[in-house]
Amino acid sequence: MTQSRSSSETPRLTSHRNSLVRQTRELKKRRFRNEQQLFRIEGYREIDQALNAGIDIEYAIYCDSMSRFSLCESTLNRIRTKKEIALYAASSGVFANLSQWQNPDGLLVVAKQRSEALEALDVRASDVFLVVDGFEKPGNLGSIFRSADATGCNGVLISDPIVDLFNPNVIRASLGTVFTTPCAVADCTRVIQWLRNNRLRIVCSSPEGDRNYLDVSLGSGCAIVIGSERGGLDEPWFESCDDLIKLPNEGFADSINAAMAANVLLFESYRQRLKNV
Amino acid sequence: MTQSRSSSETPRLTSHRNSLVRQTRELKKRRFRNEQQLFRIEGYREIDQALNAGIDIEYAIYCDSMSRFSLCESTLNRIRTKKEIALYAASSGVFANLSQWQNPDGLLVVAKQRSEALEALDVRASDVFLVVDGFEKPGNLGSIFRSADATGCNGVLISDPIVDLFNPNVIRASLGTVFTTPCAVADCTRVIQWLRNNRLRIVCSSPEGDRNYLDVSLGSGCAIVIGSERGGLDEPWFESCDDLIKLPNEGFADSINAAMAANVLLFESYRQRLKNV
Repeated sequence: MTQSRSSSETPRLTSHRNSLVRQTRELKKRRFRNEQQLFRIEGYREIDQALNAGIDIEYAIYCDSMSRFSLCESTLNRIRTKKEIALYAASSGVFANLSQWQNPDGLLVVAKQRSEALEALDVRASDVFLVVDGFEKPGNLGSIFRSADATGCNGVLISDPIVDLFNPNVIRASLGTVFTTPCAVADCTRVIQWLRNNRLRIVCSSPEGDRNYLDVSLGSGCAIVIGSERGGLDEPWFESCDDLIKLPNEGFADSINAAMAANVLLFESYRQRLKNV
Repeated sequence: MTQSRSSSETPRLTSHRNSLVRQTRELKKRRFRNEQQLFRIEGYREIDQALNAGIDIEYAIYCDSMSRFSLCESTLNRIRTKKEIALYAASSGVFANLSQWQNPDGLLVVAKQRSEALEALDVRASDVFLVVDGFEKPGNLGSIFRSADATGCNGVLISDPIVDLFNPNVIRASLGTVFTTPCAVADCTRVIQWLRNNRLRIVCSSPEGDRNYLDVSLGSGCAIVIGSERGGLDEPWFESCDDLIKLPNEGFADSINAAMAANVLLFESYRQRLKNV
């Protein structure tokens, strides 16, 4: 059994100028995250999912004087049993300055960025992947991971991303399912080639689609492709898709938002699998 | 034919202290909106939908030196043909100060609040209403109106709201479909009574649901009830529902967010109508 560490052994962080505190703060910036190949995870639910997913956590910082800290106790106990994770206790001033939340839980970790390579993904002929092309809004991307998680989608592929997967708002909106869901990032032509190599049908959703989404097989062996709200899908997707589908528009507005479209198609894929349509 | 007004007749607003400018600015506050029974609509798409819906607009303010103003031209022309709408041209300083957007279109209007009474709604035995209970996030509420619009839902009922329908972020996230979609606001017991009086089945969605959402009739003659992400459904809904359904959870996270759940159920309702399930 792994021995847990007592709090008396935990180094305390009380200065804003401490080098670890400075690095943790700098990791709020995308460029620094990429240089260091590290990223931050804040919040007990998100960290729990990172632990479930086997994300390689380097160190954890907690602050037991935060009002919401009691929520973090069991996650912190999971961390204490892992000797490879360095543990630090921060003063409330230091923690409040490090946090990106208005009302912090009082626990954050710094972890190694994992591979985003297509080649690292497992794939079977029956799999369903979701492809999101050129997404801009971290909250939308994060919520898509929750829908992928809920519906048993086999993975999420991000083509030509504008937002990065290690953005704190992606992590938060995903409730940590960004860690537990297989995913990869690549430019659009490489994603298309990878789908072709793996003989997955390419089903693109667009307001210009010529088939109702309910009349197309989405339950297995395909990739469902969604464009960004602003720009729609990039041209190569139109050239290489097997089916071009559209969502209903019974009303006044142009289209539902991109995250909602992904959500509808993931649940339709789930429905077709469940009902063997 | 209604004669349109030339820009030379349009009064100019150049002072922050002008009483109309002050009122328009004060309408950013919910309390002032409710006192005056007025609200603001910003953005050409949102104002177009308000015009489509026959919302009673009192006055419009535009600023033709804003960089995005060309987008507003046709909406402004629609307004010019309506003599009952007073029209003002603002300096860029005044408009920037009035706007709630980072990058304003250059057009905003002030309109009368419309009735939110249940009794004002048309209802038929085959109708499908969406009920959202205790919603907190304006963006979520707004995006639900887009899904309701896209799927031909007959109306949205808001029970025990925390956010108000005249909140600018609701309007913006809805792309103005909050105006074109029939809706009403009331406390939860009154909404339940209204649904009972109109013999609409009450189908509540909850993680504690005992039936898969795909096994329940959602295509006609019902109300689909969704709780807030934080608090779930209020107790009276559990006591009065005809079906308690749940969404799948094949993965790690607790549940998809409330707006996504509403979205899935609205599209399943659309599917059942289309396919005569």
